[in-house]
Amino acid sequence: MMTQLTQRSQTKVFEGLHAQYSHNSAALNCTMQFAIFLPPAASKETPVPVLYWLSGLTCTDENFMQKAGALKLAAELGIAIVAPDTSPRGDDIPDDPDQAYDFGKGAGFYLNATQAPWHEHYHMYDYVVDELPKIIEAEFPVTTSKSISGHSMGGHGSLTIALKNPQSYCSVSALAPIANPSNGLWGQKAFTNYLGSDRSAWHEYDATELIKERGYDKPILADVGTADSFETEELHSQTFLEAAEAAGVSIEFNFREGYDHGFYFVASFIENHLHFHAKHLFAT
Amino acid sequence: MMTQLTQRSQTKVFEGLHAQYSHNSAALNCTMQFAIFLPPAASKETPVPVLYWLSGLTCTDENFMQKAGALKLAAELGIAIVAPDTSPRGDDIPDDPDQAYDFGKGAGFYLNATQAPWHEHYHMYDYVVDELPKIIEAEFPVTTSKSISGHSMGGHGSLTIALKNPQSYCSVSALAPIANPSNGLWGQKAFTNYLGSDRSAWHEYDATELIKERGYDKPILADVGTADSFETEELHSQTFLEAAEAAGVSIEFNFREGYDHGFYFVASFIENHLHFHAKHLFAT
Repeated sequence: MMTQLTQRSQTKVFEGLHAQYSHNSAALNCTMQFAIFLPPAASKETPVPVLYWLSGLTCTDENFMQKAGALKLAAELGIAIVAPDTSPRGDDIPDDPDQAYDFGKGAGFYLNATQAPWHEHYHMYDYVVDELPKIIEAEFPVTTSKSISGHSMGGHGSLTIALKNPQSYCSVSALAPIANPSNGLWGQKAFTNYLGSDRSAWHEYDATELIKERGYDKPILADVGTADSFETEELHSQTFLEAAEAAGVSIEFNFREGYDHGFYFVASFIENHLHFHAKHLFAT
Repeated sequence: MMTQLTQRSQTKVFEGLHAQYSHNSAALNCTMQFAIFLPPAASKETPVPVLYWLSGLTCTDENFMQKAGALKLAAELGIAIVAPDTSPRGDDIPDDPDQAYDFGKGAGFYLNATQAPWHEHYHMYDYVVDELPKIIEAEFPVTTSKSISGHSMGGHGSLTIALKNPQSYCSVSALAPIANPSNGLWGQKAFTNYLGSDRSAWHEYDATELIKERGYDKPILADVGTADSFETEELHSQTFLEAAEAAGVSIEFNFREGYDHGFYFVASFIENHLHFHAKHLFAT
């Protein structure tokens, strides 16, 4: 595999390294940018496992790295973090006609679109599952051990990708995930456009449907704030949890008193998620 | 004192509270916004000391709170943090004619301007030294114990304000401060416009000149990265350090190998600064 990476930034942080790269993505058929944090322990001789982080609506590769406060503990634990962008990008990429925040650019929903005009570029599922890990494992001092996590739309991404690829990830977690998008306003808008109006096609990208149909035998951790204003219309945490229970899948799902949907919520609990993933990444 | 505060946001974070308020500022003659973090320990019965944080060029009240990763430890230590904006704001506030990032809005330099048209609003010195602490101490569960810190232009602010008001702050620190602005491009542009071309007026706002003239008997901590691209033209860390030594003032000044000027540098060392201030805030 010879993917040409162009370094966009490189910064020392917590004795490790934060860097951003752009490259031509075959899956997305456009230029993509990702961010990577390498802990100080990472070297060719001592490669480290990777946590893939999927961000929420409107985010790029930058939000999590800048705002989550995750890098200090990741440096200590010896875990690399890779944060892709949230959709294909570029002037020639189709976008929401109203440039709404919840669809199109910045809102790829980690799926493979089947409907025109989205199907030519909106393949974030293939990018995250296949293309990006191949690049990371070829170009950086990492092992093939990986876990996956995300926030909001990214929590939807982490759950659905792990549920569809149980062999690929040591563990999965989510913060305030869109856990049953087929029954939320954001999800219905995205799925109708990207996947068409036949709701049976939506099941492949709905964590509640997937866990019902497939179960899951790896560790799952999730957190949501009890003051999250998107819970009722968009997240449906309880529906997901009930589907998991019915399927006999045990989840550590924490309802955090008084926390809302934003990045201060993510920051408040990200270290729990890093410890959780470290336990499973280093057990393999 | 009856300053009307309007709450702009309120968010639970690390079991404490982050909030933003706007108010009419008498010192700045415009509406200002600040952010405050209150640790979970803060209550009327158990008020907490305050760290004032001054941000750098282009920042608002938001950058430090979102990007520094300071709130977890501040919550544990029981320290409130107050982050003002970096200049007066509003459509009727004069700005750099070219809207440059290094002067005018977002670049108040924590001084009292004497030159037209800046002198009617650009009084960040009075705001930070007098008006803001009075508001904070009247409206929030805090003690009168305070320390001050900042980054870049904000490090210039924290040093000059503490050097001019040694009785007011238990301790002062700075990350990559503009430590001798009279000899830097940013400082010369700002001081010429805000204070006029008579360089003797600049000494009141130049940490190197102030420490030479006045000394300082409270604890000072500073950090700068050895890969900080602004060191030679703008920061002049060594000049400040030499002036302090000549004045018999002892400073813990750390040169951090390989770190640059950005917020990842701030995040990497902010916890050292919080521990430093906690030691002195709780000793009084």
